[in-house]
Amino acid sequence: MRLRKVKNARERLQVDNNPYYIEDAKVFKGKWKDVFHNDNPIHIEIGCGKGQFMIELAKRNPNINYIALEKYDSVLLRALEKAILEDIPNLKLAVLDASIIKEYFSSKEVNRIYLNFSDPWPKNHHKKRRLTHEDFLNQYKEILADDGQIEQKTDNRHLFEFSLESFNHNGWYLEDICLDLHNELEKYPDNITTEFEDKWSKLGPIYRLVAKKKR
Amino acid sequence: MRLRKVKNARERLQVDNNPYYIEDAKVFKGKWKDVFHNDNPIHIEIGCGKGQFMIELAKRNPNINYIALEKYDSVLLRALEKAILEDIPNLKLAVLDASIIKEYFSSKEVNRIYLNFSDPWPKNHHKKRRLTHEDFLNQYKEILADDGQIEQKTDNRHLFEFSLESFNHNGWYLEDICLDLHNELEKYPDNITTEFEDKWSKLGPIYRLVAKKKR
Repeated sequence: MRLRKVKNARERLQVDNNPYYIEDAKVFKGKWKDVFHNDNPIHIEIGCGKGQFMIELAKRNPNINYIALEKYDSVLLRALEKAILEDIPNLKLAVLDASIIKEYFSSKEVNRIYLNFSDPWPKNHHKKRRLTHEDFLNQYKEILADDGQIEQKTDNRHLFEFSLESFNHNGWYLEDICLDLHNELEKYPDNITTEFEDKWSKLGPIYRLVAKKKR
Repeated sequence: MRLRKVKNARERLQVDNNPYYIEDAKVFKGKWKDVFHNDNPIHIEIGCGKGQFMIELAKRNPNINYIALEKYDSVLLRALEKAILEDIPNLKLAVLDASIIKEYFSSKEVNRIYLNFSDPWPKNHHKKRRLTHEDFLNQYKEILADDGQIEQKTDNRHLFEFSLESFNHNGWYLEDICLDLHNELEKYPDNITTEFEDKWSKLGPIYRLVAKKKR
């Protein structure tokens, strides 16, 4: 996604004392259930962008708690601006540095992770930054519950090839692989698109997988 | 491939006492090195079709022994007709029932298996016939040497999705996955096409993977 820096984004995320934005997410490590005041499963999106996906998902599934996480506060602000027009008690937004995600969630605290159209980091010497690199997968393994899953979508062929191998080599079961999601929507009637997906799915295949950690 | 039945195909495979065709391949289980009179590695193709791939591969790599295997004698005859125009001492052809491949090769006798454009068997109740079904993979695991590999190419998306999951679930390392081989030929300059591939690679992606058994 093209990044447009917004002035004072961090302050503006706290606008009107809104019910969505969590300023210091690390404080809630191990206590996310308290944030939502219930015991419902917790699903997170790493890199929520402008939030279309998570907002729609949270509206459809009131019995699941969603945390939309984004590295860039300027981008998260766009998600907040959308959320603020709605009333979604099972949604929170926070800024996250995914490379230290274990500092945000305790062991087995998360039930599902969404990775949608993550930055492909095409250069080989940047591969450690890809969100499906072994170093990330090992952290996900720790914060995910035993039956926890990761769902990944991308239009980037090289990132998807890399991800398939990375999950396979690091002790995950690959399930429900689809190499052309938008030609198979009858099989995925509940697919919720991201802003990026709306734009790019016309131009080439969208790849999707579900990965489950081995016990 | 469209199958055109040839009259007396089995007899015609023995034409002129040619050096390629092996009439009863099971007899050589555990003794394939004797067939080639050397200790070179043995690579096989299951479903060689009309043989273009194996003939070219064998010509390029005289220090590897190749066995081109095909279920239908009428089809294998077409491969023989091509081979007979050349002098390729490291190539043999045989009819094979892949479902009992363990009766043709002993443990660890094979170093590499090629699966090119195998029948996708699209119906779910036929999935046990797909050459990457667990039942086949378990037999391949037995006949493959410890560092043995399987290389699969297909244009069939569903077969490839199925194969990725099947290899992943049954104890194989996935390596070198490519989801659009013919857009990546600079990375695979040695790619040898099959007859089918020549025809279909213009119309959509060719998928490729290498799978290595876990020790």
